Amino acid sequence: MFTTETKIRVRYAETDQMGYVYYGRFADYYEVGRTEMIRNLSLSYKQFEDMGIMMPVLEMKIRYFKAARYDDLLTIKTSLEKLPIARIRFVCVIQNEAGEKLNEGEVTLVFTDSNTRKPTRAPDILIKALQPFF
Amino acid sequence: MFTTETKIRVRYAETDQMGYVYYGRFADYYEVGRTEMIRNLSLSYKQFEDMGIMMPVLEMKIRYFKAARYDDLLTIKTSLEKLPIARIRFVCVIQNEAGEKLNEGEVTLVFTDSNTRKPTRAPDILIKALQPFF
Amino acid sequence: MFTTETKIRVRYAETDQMGYVYYGRFADYYEVGRTEMIRNLSLSYKQFEDMGIMMPVLEMKIRYFKAARYDDLLTIKTSLEKLPIARIRFVCVIQNEAGEKLNEGEVTLVFTDSNTRKPTRAPDILIKALQPFF
Amino acid sequence: MFTTETKIRVRYAETDQMGYVYYGRFADYYEVGRTEMIRNLSLSYKQFEDMGIMMPVLEMKIRYFKAARYDDLLTIKTSLEKLPIARIRFVCVIQNEAGEKLNEGEVTLVFTDSNTRKPTRAPDILIKALQPFF
Repeated sequence: MFTTETKIRVRYAETDQMGYVYYGRFADYYEVGRTEMIRNLSLSYKQFEDMGIMMPVLEMKIRYFKAARYDDLLTIKTSLEKLPIARIRFVCVIQNEAGEKLNEGEVTLVFTDSNTRKPTRAPDILIKALQPFF
Repeated sequence: MFTTETKIRVRYAETDQMGYVYYGRFADYYEVGRTEMIRNLSLSYKQFEDMGIMMPVLEMKIRYFKAARYDDLLTIKTSLEKLPIARIRFVCVIQNEAGEKLNEGEVTLVFTDSNTRKPTRAPDILIKALQPFF
Repeated sequence: MFTTETKIRVRYAETDQMGYVYYGRFADYYEVGRTEMIRNLSLSYKQFEDMGIMMPVLEMKIRYFKAARYDDLLTIKTSLEKLPIARIRFVCVIQNEAGEKLNEGEVTLVFTDSNTRKPTRAPDILIKALQPFF
Repeated sequence: MFTTETKIRVRYAETDQMGYVYYGRFADYYEVGRTEMIRNLSLSYKQFEDMGIMMPVLEMKIRYFKAARYDDLLTIKTSLEKLPIARIRFVCVIQNEAGEKLNEGEVTLVFTDSNTRKPTRAPDILIKALQPFF
């Protein structure tokens, strides 16, 4: 398993008139978690795109327990539970400063050739970087 | 069962650098579907808020089949498969103009008292308006 | 002068915890106005992009008079006051259902070659379509 | 004059199909700059809201020089050039890691009583905290 933690501060633009972070904005936060996980491997998603690999999302699932609010400093825990092959599944947990779990979710992406727009395999550099953790 | 259809046109702001609608934006589209369903019952979500009822999201799940693109005219089909009690579960399907299913999902919301922020029951006016369809 | 009107319904996702539409979201609305103006000329911004022309924004200015709220049905009035050459300047006014002016602004975009990313001229098909109105 | 610097990393969700950060998203970034400036005074915008003061935006103006891209680490420089009375005017400059100015703008907000929704004066605690810098 490989896990990364990132901090994010809730922006005013992300709240809605209930006074909470809008439920759809967590998709953006989860993506920040994925980006930072890949950076922690000394790689970048940008690099994958430059290699001609895109990663559209196949499935997303979020369970909400508690609301996030403006200016909250959130912790995004992002984990990979197994090595990716054609797909990669990120497990995300968001906590507030009190350590309470606000929501958790999974996002599955599929490695795609940006020219043919067809599925492909996880790039070797990603597999190599992840192997020590599995 | 009660079903509503709404049309939505993809905005430039909703695309990302893959050239697709960003995966998280469909949460916003699904909400448009819910709003229009409630309007079709001659009710409004605003009205619920004025009655002191909020509806935070408990769970969201989306499966993505095909991308949506800038300026696509999408159809959002929103269905209720059973009468709500304390929770309400909307089933959403998004199609493009060719009738292809782009994604489908479920969003479960919980009726909440906006003062106590505790769960409550679906408002009577909603139940009454839905009953003929079940 | 050439003017177009479009209707837009405020989404929950676009509100913030003040209970108003977030001030930055009007940039998105103004873009909807521009898109619909081009469609009214039987052209599309997509078409320009396919021709290798991008239109990044050079300047935006908005003056806010009154707030927009969830579920408001807004009218976006978009005008061109002169024929574009290298730049195009859209003037936007947003009104609510009572006809009150909520905000007004200008957005100036520059025609850009998407390969060289250098400034270019407005496409001929756009000039031709606009000429009868000036 | 009082100036604050904050860093922000561009998220995938903020890009559009031009491959740039969508022009409207800088309104969100500028707000992050304002929030961090107030935090640097050991105050918070949340605190103002709790005191019954809201700060809707009166005017926004942005001039764009160069695009921001996914994963860029941006610097937001936020300045107050004079002490606020009934309004507060933030001047913002966004730079990339190479120190290039990407865009600059001004945002003017008006102190508003959240009950009466009428203009009011800048809270004393804000004036006191700013006075040493002017």
